[in-house]
Amino acid sequence: MKIVCSQNELKNNLSLVSRVVPSRPTHPVLGNVLLVADDRTQQISLTGYDLNIGIRTSFSAEVIDGGKITLPAKLLNDIVSRLLPGEITLAYQEEDDDSGEADTTITYQVTLTSASANFEIRGLGAEEFPDLPVIEGDNSLDLPIDILSEGLQGTLFAASTEEIKKVLTGINLCVTKDRLEFAATDSHRLAVVSTEIEDCQKNFTVTIPAKALRELEKMLSGQDKNELVKLNFDESQIVFEIGDRYLTTRKIDEVYPQYEKLIPTKFEITVTLERKRLISGLELVSVLATQNNNLVKFNIDKESEELFLSVESQDLGSAEQSMPAQITGSGIQIGFNVKYLMDGLKALTTNDIKMQLNGDRLPVIFTPLGDLQMTYLVMPVQLRD
Amino acid sequence: MKIVCSQNELKNNLSLVSRVVPSRPTHPVLGNVLLVADDRTQQISLTGYDLNIGIRTSFSAEVIDGGKITLPAKLLNDIVSRLLPGEITLAYQEEDDDSGEADTTITYQVTLTSASANFEIRGLGAEEFPDLPVIEGDNSLDLPIDILSEGLQGTLFAASTEEIKKVLTGINLCVTKDRLEFAATDSHRLAVVSTEIEDCQKNFTVTIPAKALRELEKMLSGQDKNELVKLNFDESQIVFEIGDRYLTTRKIDEVYPQYEKLIPTKFEITVTLERKRLISGLELVSVLATQNNNLVKFNIDKESEELFLSVESQDLGSAEQSMPAQITGSGIQIGFNVKYLMDGLKALTTNDIKMQLNGDRLPVIFTPLGDLQMTYLVMPVQLRD
Repeated sequence: MKIVCSQNELKNNLSLVSRVVPSRPTHPVLGNVLLVADDRTQQISLTGYDLNIGIRTSFSAEVIDGGKITLPAKLLNDIVSRLLPGEITLAYQEEDDDSGEADTTITYQVTLTSASANFEIRGLGAEEFPDLPVIEGDNSLDLPIDILSEGLQGTLFAASTEEIKKVLTGINLCVTKDRLEFAATDSHRLAVVSTEIEDCQKNFTVTIPAKALRELEKMLSGQDKNELVKLNFDESQIVFEIGDRYLTTRKIDEVYPQYEKLIPTKFEITVTLERKRLISGLELVSVLATQNNNLVKFNIDKESEELFLSVESQDLGSAEQSMPAQITGSGIQIGFNVKYLMDGLKALTTNDIKMQLNGDRLPVIFTPLGDLQMTYLVMPVQLRD
Repeated sequence: MKIVCSQNELKNNLSLVSRVVPSRPTHPVLGNVLLVADDRTQQISLTGYDLNIGIRTSFSAEVIDGGKITLPAKLLNDIVSRLLPGEITLAYQEEDDDSGEADTTITYQVTLTSASANFEIRGLGAEEFPDLPVIEGDNSLDLPIDILSEGLQGTLFAASTEEIKKVLTGINLCVTKDRLEFAATDSHRLAVVSTEIEDCQKNFTVTIPAKALRELEKMLSGQDKNELVKLNFDESQIVFEIGDRYLTTRKIDEVYPQYEKLIPTKFEITVTLERKRLISGLELVSVLATQNNNLVKFNIDKESEELFLSVESQDLGSAEQSMPAQITGSGIQIGFNVKYLMDGLKALTTNDIKMQLNGDRLPVIFTPLGDLQMTYLVMPVQLRD
């Protein structure tokens, strides 16, 4: 194998696939990236795979001799990212296996050359590298990047990070004829983003690991918002395809909780608030909240048309912040865990938001006033008198 | 006490003095800052003190009623830094001591008010706060900020962080009639910055904890380079005075090693190098050096007038980088710990540098080609053949 490619292209593609390469691989080859150089297409493809999530990208290069090799991901990344812009030549020759054992892994001595630097690094044979799963059947769906990004941005933060309840570590994606719905909950709060789509002739629901979708979100971030992402799936796997880039992940096959039932449809109290002002007010009073189980009290004062945020801490003292509020219904005092509130408020993105509730022990809904159809549900925390 | 001050002034001064306030104080009051409001001068002074290093600053405010109080540094900092720009009012009234015990610390309830927020926080009486040391006698010296900054920047990185050999955790400052010299060593390397000064009529040497000088460096960073820093000292303490700001620290009273003797004065080989190119070359090859005790080999090749940096790692492979070099004397191969080299090279600041040596087991000197009179001495590491 012998290839000449641009430092910049190699750097960008490597940093993308390296993100899924485990830092402590269960098998040495999983700490490597697979590099395939095709002399017919003059393309190089790079693959990283931790047996759950796989990312493959490809880019143009001068492929003098085609070939396949796997190379240590972290080391290669460290080298390429420190080289100056310019051409990089990668080549290898097979090493003699002098151990005499038949099942020994064949290592290759790979030379990497740039204008003023030379490296020799060890690669493992491509035959050691596991194949990415192949999707069977023809179940696919094209999604605009902006809809997918919006759905991920509005839900990913609410997925659970605790592996004990595995289904909650995923995002539930529900596709009906004219609607796409993303949902995530860790049982303390629930985030739902719903979008109308043109008649897509599909009807399915799937739960996808949030970990994989966080990588997808990063892959989407630099892309043209109007491009399409192709989603392919079968019984066990999902593949996202964005131009030359693929992300493959296992599905979570447990049944996702029926979250729609949790969302109230009628409300006794509606409060309209300026979102950024609420965020900075919460940031301010929560200085004292950490010593107090993150509890912040909302006092919705009908008379003065104001929201008073307050925290009382036995050890430190007390804090109070006021802000204007449009209130429909009666005033109320209600407590929240400020951490859960903040996550949702940061994801809502609009200038003004609506807070809707029925009582101090019932679910509270936050929704943006604008185009985005997002629902954020939080359970209140009981206030001591 | 009742004061009205600007959020911005309070924030900046608080963040300065808070840096020396310990996060886990041995006595509660040491986790506080001392606030003194003087109604005569209409000034507020803030003091933080961990019994070793103390910082005091002062700024103008509207002092309606003078008084003294100590307030929790971290909490006050967290609050003030999150408030919007504008006026802040601070006031307190004494709380009744209802415990009946004579020796109970008196706490005060302090109210902090801004445009839309109110806080109540607990203060401790100012009488609990230890006094900053008073300098006896009249030993003082005025130093331009640029000379002090240059000396600190060129030596602080080389001071030891290991408390076992305490004297090496300090910077040695030696003042003679016409010369000021800063030195630091951790016994692996030595950094010396020397500056000519106008006849100052002083002759002394003092070792100052690097920890205190790192704080001083931060205090100097925003200041006008032509201003003067007043240095006052007695047997045990040193005070730096920059306008309204004071930093006080204990001296280290052990005798500093006689480092001058270590610096060779004659050299057999001199190599001139481009500093940034050497740094980026070292960063590149050291990707493989971490697995190899940070050892980088310098091959100074007289014939090609080049320096070859190289690293061989048993596990990972090898790296080589070349760069042009002006060589006087013979070629040589010599090994270095790349970490020690890098620290010094980053502090040298000039475009070109001179590397001077006598052999592969003898001290090597790096000096900048320019105005700065700095000497960086590193011991080589033995190469295996």
